[in-house]
Amino acid sequence: MSNETTETDAGTEENDPQDAIDAQGDRRREELDDRIFEHSAGDEQEGIPFVGAGPGNPRLLTVAGKELLEEADLVVHAGSLVNSELLEEYCDHAELVNSVGKDLEELIPLMRDAYEDGDNVVRLHSGDPAIYGAALEQMDALEHEDVPTHFVPGVTSAFAASATLRTQLTLNEVSNHVAFTRPQGKTLSPEEDHISDFVEMGDVTTCIYLGTHAVRETMDRLLEDDHDPETPVAVIYHASWPDEDVIVGSIGDIADRVEEAGYRASAMVVIGDAVTGAGYERSYLYGDWANRGSSGSAGETEASDD
Amino acid sequence: MSNETTETDAGTEENDPQDAIDAQGDRRREELDDRIFEHSAGDEQEGIPFVGAGPGNPRLLTVAGKELLEEADLVVHAGSLVNSELLEEYCDHAELVNSVGKDLEELIPLMRDAYEDGDNVVRLHSGDPAIYGAALEQMDALEHEDVPTHFVPGVTSAFAASATLRTQLTLNEVSNHVAFTRPQGKTLSPEEDHISDFVEMGDVTTCIYLGTHAVRETMDRLLEDDHDPETPVAVIYHASWPDEDVIVGSIGDIADRVEEAGYRASAMVVIGDAVTGAGYERSYLYGDWANRGSSGSAGETEASDD
Repeated sequence: MSNETTETDAGTEENDPQDAIDAQGDRRREELDDRIFEHSAGDEQEGIPFVGAGPGNPRLLTVAGKELLEEADLVVHAGSLVNSELLEEYCDHAELVNSVGKDLEELIPLMRDAYEDGDNVVRLHSGDPAIYGAALEQMDALEHEDVPTHFVPGVTSAFAASATLRTQLTLNEVSNHVAFTRPQGKTLSPEEDHISDFVEMGDVTTCIYLGTHAVRETMDRLLEDDHDPETPVAVIYHASWPDEDVIVGSIGDIADRVEEAGYRASAMVVIGDAVTGAGYERSYLYGDWANRGSSGSAGETEASDD
Repeated sequence: MSNETTETDAGTEENDPQDAIDAQGDRRREELDDRIFEHSAGDEQEGIPFVGAGPGNPRLLTVAGKELLEEADLVVHAGSLVNSELLEEYCDHAELVNSVGKDLEELIPLMRDAYEDGDNVVRLHSGDPAIYGAALEQMDALEHEDVPTHFVPGVTSAFAASATLRTQLTLNEVSNHVAFTRPQGKTLSPEEDHISDFVEMGDVTTCIYLGTHAVRETMDRLLEDDHDPETPVAVIYHASWPDEDVIVGSIGDIADRVEEAGYRASAMVVIGDAVTGAGYERSYLYGDWANRGSSGSAGETEASDD
């Protein structure tokens, strides 16, 4: 493991984001960034933070995210993907810029110039920025121009969805694994669509992001692949927002229900028996295992939580 | 979708947690809990909150979690799985009870009695309580005794790990999906261990919880299944804690590195090319797509964040 100093290349190419991304990628292949070892997640760090806004409810932002927003002079946010209540509650003093419709060529100089002028700049992504976030390309382009950046994690919408459903995504004897996935479409080829594979495993809770518009096609493909039409499916629109809505059904009927409700975006689709929270077995994590001491069960005692 | 009033059954069986769990499960199969539709995630609700403490750093707790802890009279926490700094920062006024070594027969009356005495009771799980949390069995046992409960989501350790690694778990043209999984062992049979399947898919970032003690066996199985020994693997011990440590290697050499470091628990194992953050393509989420308007791309414009 290399742990050498990473110096930022002054660079001769003029501000092409893809060149900047490629240059940062080359650097990543050669050596790990020192800051990986110098900082822990959540620490205060120099530069522009890429903050996970959480699922929507301002109360589900992290303490770190709240502090950063309250100190910000400029907040570049994800437009309608971030609940406006959150911006109103924490950012009423800051300049707000909606990133939707702006490309990297516009966003990068905007954030760089404000940062170089001494402003506190925050880039606010919905959910957690590591999940379908497209944050890294902005960070690499900024780093290439000598603007340091870092991630501040957030609560992803699947966790708000499971909280709303009053269930867990893993559940003893029901679901042992969780998949965060998206359906085939403009970005993903049919070969890259693994939804049917995850459902086939039988003990995976499948959480579909960016798939509200494709619920019918997705369910039709699952039926073609002979999955049980009775498999529970929940669709949670705007999880944790004031207009949150929950539709519960099955692979066989959820598409009709979603179309009836009229949702074409901004919903989480959760497939699997964990949706209902029924039928699980007591884990015996409390009591038996803990009392068993350290005789080979070191890993398992972790299981009492997270 | 049923949306009838769920009345809590007084119940004749005397306080056996498995009976309570089964009774709640039967109820779940029959009809959905009204509260699923009445509340949104993050809302203030009556009863005992099951709060996700986040990965460790007190700054990565949610605003809701912080408020609940600050108002708590009794906090039942997951012992060494929760960073003591968080308890010191937010709970110094509350009675603290470590759940480790206590079974449901002890924990349920403890929380119920405090709640019935009018105390603010908080159950604090590490990470997000929906991921390997064993929260629901406590909630069902409490609900069966007429104590209302609800989830407050949190940041899971995989998101702290990716923030530390300065990468995303999904990355355009590198990783399209994320799996949260655990290895075979006392809880999971070999048939229920899907790690090799996830890695085989080629575009999944595989995050292994509860698997620090089994890194060598896990990597040996991946090598037996002919996975590329050069596939990147990162092990993040205590992500976001003051003693956070990062080990970066590959399927072929990570076990030696982890054994050398001596970790047997409390680390997240992340497998896949997204670990390095190299080699991705600019998403073109900013600019091109947004300018394309609403002509069939409603779902995709969500992708600009989250």
